[in-house]
Formats: sequence, structure tokens, C-alpha cells
Amino acid sequence: MSDTTVHPILLCGGAGTRLWPVSRKSYPKQFTNMLGDQSLFQASALRLTGPGFAAPVVVTGGDFRFVVTEQLAGVETQAGAILIEPAARNTAPAILAAALHLAAEDPDAAMLVAPSDHVMGDDAGFRDAVRAALPAALEGRIVTFGIRPDRPETGYGWLELEQATEATAPVPLKGFVEKPALAEAQRMLADGRYLWNAGIFLFTAGTLIAAFETHQPAMLAAVRAAVAGAATDLSFTRLDAAAWDVLEDISIDYAVMEKADNLSVLPYGGAWSDLGDWDAILREGNPDERGVVRQGPATALDCDDTLLRSESDALEIVGIGLKDVIAVATPDAVLIADRARSQEVKAAVARLKEKGVPQAETLPRDYRPWGWYESLAVGDRFQVKRIVVTPGAALSLQSHVHRSEHWIVVEGTARVTVDGDVKLVTENQSVYIPLGAVHRMENPGKVPMVLIEVQTGRYLGEDDITRYDDVYARGQGAKG
Amino acid sequence: MSDTTVHPILLCGGAGTRLWPVSRKSYPKQFTNMLGDQSLFQASALRLTGPGFAAPVVVTGGDFRFVVTEQLAGVETQAGAILIEPAARNTAPAILAAALHLAAEDPDAAMLVAPSDHVMGDDAGFRDAVRAALPAALEGRIVTFGIRPDRPETGYGWLELEQATEATAPVPLKGFVEKPALAEAQRMLADGRYLWNAGIFLFTAGTLIAAFETHQPAMLAAVRAAVAGAATDLSFTRLDAAAWDVLEDISIDYAVMEKADNLSVLPYGGAWSDLGDWDAILREGNPDERGVVRQGPATALDCDDTLLRSESDALEIVGIGLKDVIAVATPDAVLIADRARSQEVKAAVARLKEKGVPQAETLPRDYRPWGWYESLAVGDRFQVKRIVVTPGAALSLQSHVHRSEHWIVVEGTARVTVDGDVKLVTENQSVYIPLGAVHRMENPGKVPMVLIEVQTGRYLGEDDITRYDDVYARGQGAKG
Repeated sequence: MSDTTVHPILLCGGAGTRLWPVSRKSYPKQFTNMLGDQSLFQASALRLTGPGFAAPVVVTGGDFRFVVTEQLAGVETQAGAILIEPAARNTAPAILAAALHLAAEDPDAAMLVAPSDHVMGDDAGFRDAVRAALPAALEGRIVTFGIRPDRPETGYGWLELEQATEATAPVPLKGFVEKPALAEAQRMLADGRYLWNAGIFLFTAGTLIAAFETHQPAMLAAVRAAVAGAATDLSFTRLDAAAWDVLEDISIDYAVMEKADNLSVLPYGGAWSDLGDWDAILREGNPDERGVVRQGPATALDCDDTLLRSESDALEIVGIGLKDVIAVATPDAVLIADRARSQEVKAAVARLKEKGVPQAETLPRDYRPWGWYESLAVGDRFQVKRIVVTPGAALSLQSHVHRSEHWIVVEGTARVTVDGDVKLVTENQSVYIPLGAVHRMENPGKVPMVLIEVQTGRYLGEDDITRYDDVYARGQGAKG
Repeated sequence: MSDTTVHPILLCGGAGTRLWPVSRKSYPKQFTNMLGDQSLFQASALRLTGPGFAAPVVVTGGDFRFVVTEQLAGVETQAGAILIEPAARNTAPAILAAALHLAAEDPDAAMLVAPSDHVMGDDAGFRDAVRAALPAALEGRIVTFGIRPDRPETGYGWLELEQATEATAPVPLKGFVEKPALAEAQRMLADGRYLWNAGIFLFTAGTLIAAFETHQPAMLAAVRAAVAGAATDLSFTRLDAAAWDVLEDISIDYAVMEKADNLSVLPYGGAWSDLGDWDAILREGNPDERGVVRQGPATALDCDDTLLRSESDALEIVGIGLKDVIAVATPDAVLIADRARSQEVKAAVARLKEKGVPQAETLPRDYRPWGWYESLAVGDRFQVKRIVVTPGAALSLQSHVHRSEHWIVVEGTARVTVDGDVKLVTENQSVYIPLGAVHRMENPGKVPMVLIEVQTGRYLGEDDITRYDDVYARGQGAKG
């Protein structure tokens, strides 16, 4: 018999583009401060803390592993485990991997699976709902959370119950409904037996593994191999790539939920949104009496039902006479869309990618294992970067064939190695790295180290790098 | 008897805000590349060159004097004179000052007065029109240019002729019509006797002075005093501020044109626009078959009758499903407006000014007598700037109480003075300026010098400056 600790499973490997230009492949929505002062991932992690909740198991992609640790540290929490998916394969393999990981310690471990890019209005109420669902889960049910609808939403899948209910404990599920047309959604809203499918589940590891054994035995074997062959890399558990690569890209709903006969639904009446597009941000962003949401430095003159969002304190966005418009400005990309066409942002990003526009997938700020950097200015034969190194981190020992570098420390203290000489460089001190010199930058301190790098040379590409030693095991010519 | 050389008078003291965020008080529309590769001012200067045209007399404000010289140099031309208005007083005093300046040499000098923020499609055709107007001007007429209308424009004043004409030589003027309502504009367009008032005039200096003598004798006396008391400052003629300050803010139309009885009109059939608002940019910007104008990196998905403009190669603007929208993005401000509300941009700028938003009036790039700078990054105790110094220019000899500076030259060569030591610093070399050191930066070379400055200190305001010597005669605590 398990104790009743619930293990949160936070899924954050997704790379949605519908909230471009804020969400990009290189830094997707769940890690952005889409609403409020925390990222959606941080808010999701904090939502499932406190008595009865274990440290979360995070499932993410390799590119995001340091973002995960940095963001968890930013809200003073840490993961029970961070599982690295060798490639994105949708929710079924990710959730199964988490179940197998937990089952190795305790097959009866209760798992609360939640996307990390949704918002909920009432964290305590949601924790209460999880506790209300727990007995059924411990009895072997797969409990899925159904949100009581307040509008005929066509962007969500729905859950059908046997009968309308005011219950706040699990009830039987009759069936799944795919994203409906508007008339169907209106009918379901009026009917009262239908809830939104939030993609949130509670079950024991053993229950889920048994469901895969019945419905997806081949997938179970492959994921079992990927977990068994996992390697430990710093604080990360890297699932085995060879086993993982053969997996089908498939959601948990298709893989097992729609086939299983032990499903229950926990009706949940609190606020919830999947923030699936900018229209959802406008809806959830606390619109004023004219339906206008202003986020960041924004000025609206005679606008209605419009989102004006700026991602930078130094970027003012102004709307005049707009109606049903989404306008989102970042320092390198601006989106303006008819509100009714919010779903087409995904197509716009695909178009930009075809055109070779870097803003389609990447941000000016490039996150690396040791921190991040951004380019401040680029000239014909020079580039200026701001480099931020997290405490204790180190860049690789490296040299460049085509460029020299001036480093000026402006915050914190760096330990700098140049051709074997090691010295501390602190605020308002500078170092010159001649072309060809073998050098390394580290932050030996307790606070982030900020450095301005001025590169000069004929060729300034990131691939002009020869690595001699790297704590993050990256190769020649690989980035940063 | 004068020879028939025409002296172009370029008015560029205006500071229109209807084309914000590209046009700002600190760098108004006429100096921006609103359409094409040259600024409107540069195009205006080049339009009036060649046989029969003297070097232009430019009338501008003190803040723009170095922009004028730099932009003229950029198109390899120079001014005959640059008159500096001590304060903006609209067109009447500016034009009269230019007339008095020319009359000192030749009272019969022919003057072609033109705003420097308009576009014309056919420069050679316009020069032909000026030549066609010249005999009447030399006979003592005030010739105003009337544009043949192609739409019922309510944003312009109109000119009424005695009768409809196909003439391309001056004809008599019957009267002025203020900006009309739409029905009135439609009537005038159909009538055939009405032209748009372009604010372009040809007359001799003596003719204009005589008109002021008759209709504005007090203004004539004051402007005469301002011209008589003008001081020479480098290549500029600074009108006397005490005399100038008492002048009324009044247009040439109100001051004399509407009162004079010696007016003729030169009907002009070529393309012309005053680029009075963003709607005009959309109209003049060569719209595609759906009425969309894309300027800079811009992507339109299923848009109609929409302007998508980005001011930076590093800033992608994307529109989805828009109709009749103006969207203009700069690195520090974004405007999105209903096309029909283009005129309200002025009100939006006023609102921003009330809110204390710096983008209302200033640009990130700050133009100075010696070149320009922009802030690349600002932290709690540091700032990074890009500084560009024009060949031969020098910053003041100065010191700071609160900050140290690291200078890295990335293009060209600097002559640097630090506490009396003078040395040349070239590409990929750096200099450290300790707090309190008396220092100066000059560009002794033939190409622009680009320098990255990293400031560190508790207070980084532009007013932390003690000046010891300045070729541009600026005082303590004044900027740059």
C-alpha cells in the first residue's frame, strides 16, 4: 500500500507556436511570463506543492534542461527528477516514462499529470480537487479532470458524463468528444453532461503501466527500454535515444485513454485555460470595461476588444481605433492579427520559417547550459554581446581563429583563463583575448556575472570555436 | 536685372508628429527615409539642382543643424547658406528671413520656396515647371504652385482659378479654399477650376519683401533685425534670438498670400504628396493588388489595404487577416491604427508626452554636433553605448564624477586624450577612462569612427559631465 503522497508530473517538452512571437521553438510558452510575474511552468510547479505533494518529476527536451533548473531555482524549488526526452513524441511516451521511473521505487505511487503551459485561477481549490480524486486513483481508476464549461468553446476536446452532476468527487466517464463545431459546443454547454478535457490526470504508476500493457504493449516495451537505458548527466536523467527514437508520436488520449474501461472524471469548477492562442490571453488577461487588455508599456486610444502587449519596458505599443485586434510586440518581432484569426499564427510562423526568418524559431536571447547571451550590436567587423553566467557555471575552454575579444565585467566577478594564466576580474575591469588565445570564462561567485563582450574580426560566426574542455560535453564547432 | 538663377529655399524646421513613431520631435519626418533610400530632405535638395539652380538656402532649427550638414554631405551637395531659426515660428518668418538674406546680395534674386517633407514623382518635370513660372516671377508676380487633383482630398487646402485651364504657364488666382468637407472637395474635383495648394512658391526676394512691407510691416521690421543681427557659427547663420522671439507663429498663406493682389498659379500635373499621415504613405507606397504596402521585413497573410512597416532589418512585422490597418514598428515603439484614424496619431503622441513616455519625442539614436550615439544596454550600474564620430569631429574635453568608461574602437581610428596624454587608438584597441579623468575623443580620420563605450558607476545620467573645452560651445551639464 502506497502512502498518499502525490507525485506531480510536469510535462514541458512542448514547443507551441500559436503564441508567437513570445513563444518560440527555442523558448516555448511554458517558460515565458505569459500572464503575471512567473512563467507558466513556475506557476505549475508551485501549484502542486505543499502537504501531500512530492517534488515534481519534470519531463522535457534536452534544449530546455537548464531552463527548467534555472526556473525552478528562481521560485526556490527543485525537481524530484528531470527526465530528458531524446526527441518530442507527444504525451503518451512522456507520461509512461514518468510512470516507469516512479514505479521503480513504488508501483503504487500516485501521479498527477499536468501540462505546464495552462493557467488555473485557484491553486488551493485545485489541490483540494486532487485530494478528492485520490481515493479513486488509489483504487485503480484513471481519473481525468473535467472543467465545468462557461462558454461553447470549439478549441477544446470535451468529456461526456453519464448524467449531469454537481459532484466534486469522481464520476464515471461516458466518452470523449473531439473539438466540436460551434452548434455542437452550444448543445453540449446547454446539456450539462459535458465538461472540457483539460489533459490533467491522476492515477497510480501501476494503473497506467497496466493500461499500456493492455492497449500499447509495443510502446511499453520501447519506453521501458528507454528508461532502463537512461543515463545520468549532472542532475538530469537522459532517456535512451535508440529505444526512444522508434516511438510513435501519439497523445495519451489516443494511446490509452480512449481505449481504457477504468476511467473516471473529476468535475472541476475552478478557472482554467490552456492559453491555446492569443485570443485566450485576451480572455484571461483581465480585460477592462471596453474589453481591452494592456500588458507592458501599452497605450490604447478608443480601442475595443483588443490585446496590446509589449514584451519590453523599452518598447511602447500604441493602438488607435482598433476593434478585435491582437497586437504583440517584442524587440525583434511584431504580430498584428484579427482576433478571429488567432489560430493562424501557427501558419504565419511556418511561413516565416520557409522564408528563413530567424525570428520564426529563435529569440535574441540564447540560453546555454551556463546562462545566456544576447547580441547588442552587429557591425561589419564587430559584434557586441551581453553575456550572463550563472553562479558556479563555466564556459568551455576555447579559442577562435578569426576574432579577438574584449571582455568588460559589469556585474559580479569572473575567473578568466587566458593561455594558462588565471585571474579574477571584477566589476569595471577588462580583459583582452587575442585571436588564437586559449581562454575560458567562469563565474566563481554567488551572484550572476554580467560581462560585455566586444568581438572584432572578419568572421564572427558562433561556429568559429575550438573546444579543449567542456563540463557540458559539447563538441567542436557546436554553439557556445 | 537679375540673371535667371533660381535659389531653392528648403524649409525644414518642422516637427510633425503625424508620422510617429518614425518621425519624432528630435528627428522629424523630413530627415527620415520615409519612402526610398534618401531622406525627404535629401530628395528635396537633389530635386532642385542642375542648370539654373543655385545651392539651396536651408532654414532649420538649431537642433537639426548638424543633421542638415550630414544629410547634404550624404548626397554630395552643400547649402548656399543654413539659417538657424532661434525658435519655430511657422513659414512666414522663415521665408522672409531667407528673402532678406538673399536680398542683401541681390534684391532681384528668384526664390523657389519648398517644404522639404513632401514627395514628387517627376523631378525633371517639376524643374521644367519652375522654369515655366520664372518669367512671371521676374515680372513681380508671386507664383504659387497648384497641383492638379486626382481625388477629393479633404486634408489639403485648395486654390480656385478664374477658369478651368490646361495651361502649364502661370494663370491668375481667384482665391484660397480652406481644407474642405468631402462634399465640397467632390464638387471642386468635378468643377475643374480647383487645384491643391502645395505650399510651393516662386518669387523674387524683392517681391516678397514688398508684400511684407505692405501687409506685415511689423513682422518685416523684426525679421530684418533678426537677419541683421545674425551671428556666424561654423557654417551656420544664427538669426538673432531677441528679435526673433517676438514674432508671431504664422504661415505665409495667412501672413501675406491671402492678402496680396499679385498672385499667379502655376498648374502642375505631376505627382505630389505632402505625406501628411500614414494613410498617405500607404497611398504613395506602391500598394500591391490587395492594397497592401510592406516596407522593411514584413509578412502579410490575407491582409487588405494595410501598411506593414518595419524600421529595422532585425525587426519582423507580421499581419494576419487585417483590413484597413496601419502598423509601423520601430525598435522602441509600435503603432497600430485604424487607417481612417491616421490623423489621430498626433493625439496619441500628445497622450504619450503627458504620460512622460520618452518615445513620444526622442529616438534611441541621439544626434549630436559630432555624430550620434545610442544606448545598447542599460543595467543597474552599467550602460553600453555605440558612439559614431564623423570624420574631423571632436567631443568636448570633459570629466565625470560618477562613472568610469571603457572605450573599444571597432571601426576607424580615434585620437584619445586622457589627463593630458594623447594617443591614437585604432580598431580592436581599447582605452580605460578612470572616474574623474579629463578626457576627449576625436576622429582625426577620413572615415566614421565607431566606438563601443561601457560605462560603470552608480549614476550614469548624461548630465554627469564637466566640460573644459568644446568646439560646439556647449555648457556645463548640457548633453554630449
